Amino acid sequence: MTDLEARLFDEISRIRAIDCHSHVPPESPHAQTLGDLLGYHYYTELAHAAGMPADAVDPPKSDLQRVAELVARLDTIDNTVQYSWLMEAARELFAFRAERLTPSNWPELARVVAEAAKADDRYLAVLAKANLDKVFLTNRFDEDLSAIDRSVFVPCLRTDDLVFQLGDADVRHRLAVKTGIEVGSTDDFRDALRWLMRYFVQGGAASAAISLPPDFSPQPPDAGAARQALAKAVRGKALADAESRALAVFAFDAIADTCRQFQKPFQLMIGCIRNVYPAGVAGGRDLVSKRGSLVEYADLFRRYPQVDFTVSVLSTTWAHELATFAWIFPNVKPSGHWWYANIPAHIEYDLRARLEAVPKVKLIGYYSDMYKVEFGLPKFNMYRRVLARVLAREFVETGRLGERQAVELAGLLLRDNPKRIFGV
Amino acid sequence: MTDLEARLFDEISRIRAIDCHSHVPPESPHAQTLGDLLGYHYYTELAHAAGMPADAVDPPKSDLQRVAELVARLDTIDNTVQYSWLMEAARELFAFRAERLTPSNWPELARVVAEAAKADDRYLAVLAKANLDKVFLTNRFDEDLSAIDRSVFVPCLRTDDLVFQLGDADVRHRLAVKTGIEVGSTDDFRDALRWLMRYFVQGGAASAAISLPPDFSPQPPDAGAARQALAKAVRGKALADAESRALAVFAFDAIADTCRQFQKPFQLMIGCIRNVYPAGVAGGRDLVSKRGSLVEYADLFRRYPQVDFTVSVLSTTWAHELATFAWIFPNVKPSGHWWYANIPAHIEYDLRARLEAVPKVKLIGYYSDMYKVEFGLPKFNMYRRVLARVLAREFVETGRLGERQAVELAGLLLRDNPKRIFGV
Amino acid sequence: MTDLEARLFDEISRIRAIDCHSHVPPESPHAQTLGDLLGYHYYTELAHAAGMPADAVDPPKSDLQRVAELVARLDTIDNTVQYSWLMEAARELFAFRAERLTPSNWPELARVVAEAAKADDRYLAVLAKANLDKVFLTNRFDEDLSAIDRSVFVPCLRTDDLVFQLGDADVRHRLAVKTGIEVGSTDDFRDALRWLMRYFVQGGAASAAISLPPDFSPQPPDAGAARQALAKAVRGKALADAESRALAVFAFDAIADTCRQFQKPFQLMIGCIRNVYPAGVAGGRDLVSKRGSLVEYADLFRRYPQVDFTVSVLSTTWAHELATFAWIFPNVKPSGHWWYANIPAHIEYDLRARLEAVPKVKLIGYYSDMYKVEFGLPKFNMYRRVLARVLAREFVETGRLGERQAVELAGLLLRDNPKRIFGV
Repeated sequence: MTDLEARLFDEISRIRAIDCHSHVPPESPHAQTLGDLLGYHYYTELAHAAGMPADAVDPPKSDLQRVAELVARLDTIDNTVQYSWLMEAARELFAFRAERLTPSNWPELARVVAEAAKADDRYLAVLAKANLDKVFLTNRFDEDLSAIDRSVFVPCLRTDDLVFQLGDADVRHRLAVKTGIEVGSTDDFRDALRWLMRYFVQGGAASAAISLPPDFSPQPPDAGAARQALAKAVRGKALADAESRALAVFAFDAIADTCRQFQKPFQLMIGCIRNVYPAGVAGGRDLVSKRGSLVEYADLFRRYPQVDFTVSVLSTTWAHELATFAWIFPNVKPSGHWWYANIPAHIEYDLRARLEAVPKVKLIGYYSDMYKVEFGLPKFNMYRRVLARVLAREFVETGRLGERQAVELAGLLLRDNPKRIFGV
Repeated sequence: MTDLEARLFDEISRIRAIDCHSHVPPESPHAQTLGDLLGYHYYTELAHAAGMPADAVDPPKSDLQRVAELVARLDTIDNTVQYSWLMEAARELFAFRAERLTPSNWPELARVVAEAAKADDRYLAVLAKANLDKVFLTNRFDEDLSAIDRSVFVPCLRTDDLVFQLGDADVRHRLAVKTGIEVGSTDDFRDALRWLMRYFVQGGAASAAISLPPDFSPQPPDAGAARQALAKAVRGKALADAESRALAVFAFDAIADTCRQFQKPFQLMIGCIRNVYPAGVAGGRDLVSKRGSLVEYADLFRRYPQVDFTVSVLSTTWAHELATFAWIFPNVKPSGHWWYANIPAHIEYDLRARLEAVPKVKLIGYYSDMYKVEFGLPKFNMYRRVLARVLAREFVETGRLGERQAVELAGLLLRDNPKRIFGV
Repeated sequence: MTDLEARLFDEISRIRAIDCHSHVPPESPHAQTLGDLLGYHYYTELAHAAGMPADAVDPPKSDLQRVAELVARLDTIDNTVQYSWLMEAARELFAFRAERLTPSNWPELARVVAEAAKADDRYLAVLAKANLDKVFLTNRFDEDLSAIDRSVFVPCLRTDDLVFQLGDADVRHRLAVKTGIEVGSTDDFRDALRWLMRYFVQGGAASAAISLPPDFSPQPPDAGAARQALAKAVRGKALADAESRALAVFAFDAIADTCRQFQKPFQLMIGCIRNVYPAGVAGGRDLVSKRGSLVEYADLFRRYPQVDFTVSVLSTTWAHELATFAWIFPNVKPSGHWWYANIPAHIEYDLRARLEAVPKVKLIGYYSDMYKVEFGLPKFNMYRRVLARVLAREFVETGRLGERQAVELAGLLLRDNPKRIFGV
């Protein structure tokens, strides 16, 4: 790190960031045990990919057994950036001083984690240390939002079930229980969506979100086909693939339309294939495909010019399309670096391209996607370092921006843009 | 920029470059007003993507209104490399000294631009300052080439209409008016093409050019299907998609064959989808798709070994294929960095890969794609800086080339190769 | 190269590497003449792509004629990394001191090469100088393995013919001659495979290998369709495309199953299209396509969890998928940087991504793919330099690894992992 990069990193670290996508459980936001940290799917899946049997971390195992197993495996994955998150969290949040986490020293860290967890508001201290102002959650559509600590957390309506499993009686039942609306028709579904969005907005929600497979194509819905498919599902019949698809395309469109009505952004996370490796550990079974194209979404972006679509793509081969779509469509906002694209090699290349060609007011720099607040610090710091490097090498050293301007640009990415776009 | 990079940039800047693709209008090559500069689609589309209503720069608005609107929006896009082109042009060509272009200082720049424009041969001074020896134009097939200043401009036969709209009566009418040949058959079309190419070559043209969508597949034409489709069009009937396609494939092949007869290169610009965002500003409605493959063109490259195909690809996901095809096919010449790929992040990666694996005598380094000559300087300078960086870091510092050799290599890319390949 | 990079390169060079994929002919592993070096397809194809007629290096030409022709062409390709391999080999292995290879000085190098070749064990000295411990071969299924020098060479069962040409009587005849088994049924084929694998393993082989086109999809085989297709082929009938495909899918699966039985890895080289440019020089007619997806292989990876698949991809657009599959599937091991992806620009980006996200025990750093042992040194050195750079810039300078740890990581990639995975 050059002096310039270090100065920029230091300034960037002072920006109170908005984390617009996470899976933090509001009822238990911080780690209770070391197992809560090592249980992050990155560690279990990487350890498994490196040779650990998947059942070594299965539920019947105790927290201690799992921790011991994972710690014993860390030396197979200590090159990964994910491992570096763990060590940075241990060092910065738990004052862990050893260079490595080993079978002999992990009980010490476990003790500190458990001790720290006793403070009910521990998560506030963790987020303050990470300099995160707000953290978005990802809430099931029938989740109770009343107990959420809205001083730091922002709910978000996750809509995957509503789009891809609306044909399931169970999902419609949950919807009825929550909203009081029995969905027997597509109009009922629109009513239920409105009910949900109103409930979520009243609960502080700032957006809807969905994860989409790479071959999804959000065309204009065929209302008749969707009506018939839903009616068939309501009659308890299994849907053919084409019927399920028609229903999903309709439901997706209805959610976009609800976002329009409530003037809320729709977070699109595009490119994940679920359960590619069913024998894997929990959370480590999904993968990415390079297939598909953002061109499939052009019609959606045209249909809903009033809706901000904050878009993340899972395959790095989609990164160029995303930047160019944001360069042309006012309502497309590139958002963060997601999951399999969330490593410095890809962040650096994709971030540079976005900064060179997309209006700065449209870029949402980063989100953590974390399950426990402890990972906010190392994940955001990873991003801050890459951002400092790109700003230093491509903007300040080339004379295109002064240092102060570079820090202001970082402020847009980390704070001002998500604040404005999501209205938080 | 290291000392080495600065020295290389300085030497590279002394090479009188050939700009083999632009949209400069020969009757008005330099900007008459500041609006001619700010009207470049990059500024209107980026400002629109950042929130400016599209109609703020629509024709009913006056030049002054549009300039005021765009200047007021510049602070939303001042991170982009396109913004840096504007400021470098203002500084280097108009002695504009302010750090930024603002609502208060733009009238000053507007005055200088208008004043400079009064010299009829202003464009010659602009091109000399950019150190551009020749600039290729992109001419409509029925354009009058007689008034073109051939001391600096080189005509080029643009063939998009002939390939994709040959079924339109209007295009055939324009063709008849220009060539005197009423196209009633595919043989007539070949005759008309020969007429056109002869006219263009006599007018100093060095190539034909076409922009192709990512799903175009230049297979060997089906002569019968093309004949029937053309006959149907001549009878005034609308063509079905398959008929239009057969006609386009035939017309494309006929142009390649005409290039063969006249020994002229065919510039292929592959990957643009037109009018993806119809509500956008003029020139800002087209986009890129990552779909398709250069493999579709293999048969074309085999059929016409005598024709040099200078190839640009719009999607960065095609860059590797392009380099490998040039590594194998003698008649494939990678050409520049086009439009959505024309930003330093992509140029640096793609250029390095080309320089490491494609014979140096085949590479056409760069072209401006500009609409007014003023953008030649900042666009070529952007490329020159990236080229200096890649040569310094990957060739000179690693000992693979001496400094003088590196500059000679740059000379091939910027001048000698386009001169030889296009015969100018 | 910084001091740190130089130190790392020096340490990395001391690691006795395993080269797990080459095409070295065991009966003539080192170059007998300069023509054996300049005849490497990279030089003939690049020279041809730069303008040399393909027949200038055709068999009727003498070795001397070909060398003279190629040397005369070197100044068109001296920017390429392939050219740098030639010069580094000449310098390091033949004490060639001139800066360039020219029409006037090549006879001197030719004399030294011919002189050195006289020592029967010259290849041992060459490999020692390259610091290569073992070099894998790629053997035809009916090759005689008895004379192979197993002190340095490791056989490998190449299976392309068995998968894609099992319908050819000639292939089945060769199989019968080798194994004594007349393949009249799919069961016979499985028997023959077992015979072959036993023979190869007894001959020291460590793996099977295959090159696959980008559209190959290794689905679970349809036993009935395969049986019928094979029966039809045995009756001397030509197979329809679907039948050939069913047979290939079956044969491929049978080989994977044989690897399972013998506990040997299966080397998958994915993405090459054969004979795209038939008019090219020998070895310079194949190309890459960006199409396809590793998702097609997910079912294979699930079906054979006991088999290590060491995977190389030819298109750089597949690199991200490969890293992510290795991050999730225990039996997927990214292997080297193949052919059109084997240039520093791509190695650097792909290697960084692998090192940041794939468990270090799974990465096979590099293999030479060479046809004569002389290219092991410059190709491995190219990789060592890139590896030193990535380790320095992304790991040591960022504080994620100490220098000693970085060298240990390199040791895994170059030696320990291939030793363990292939059991050599």
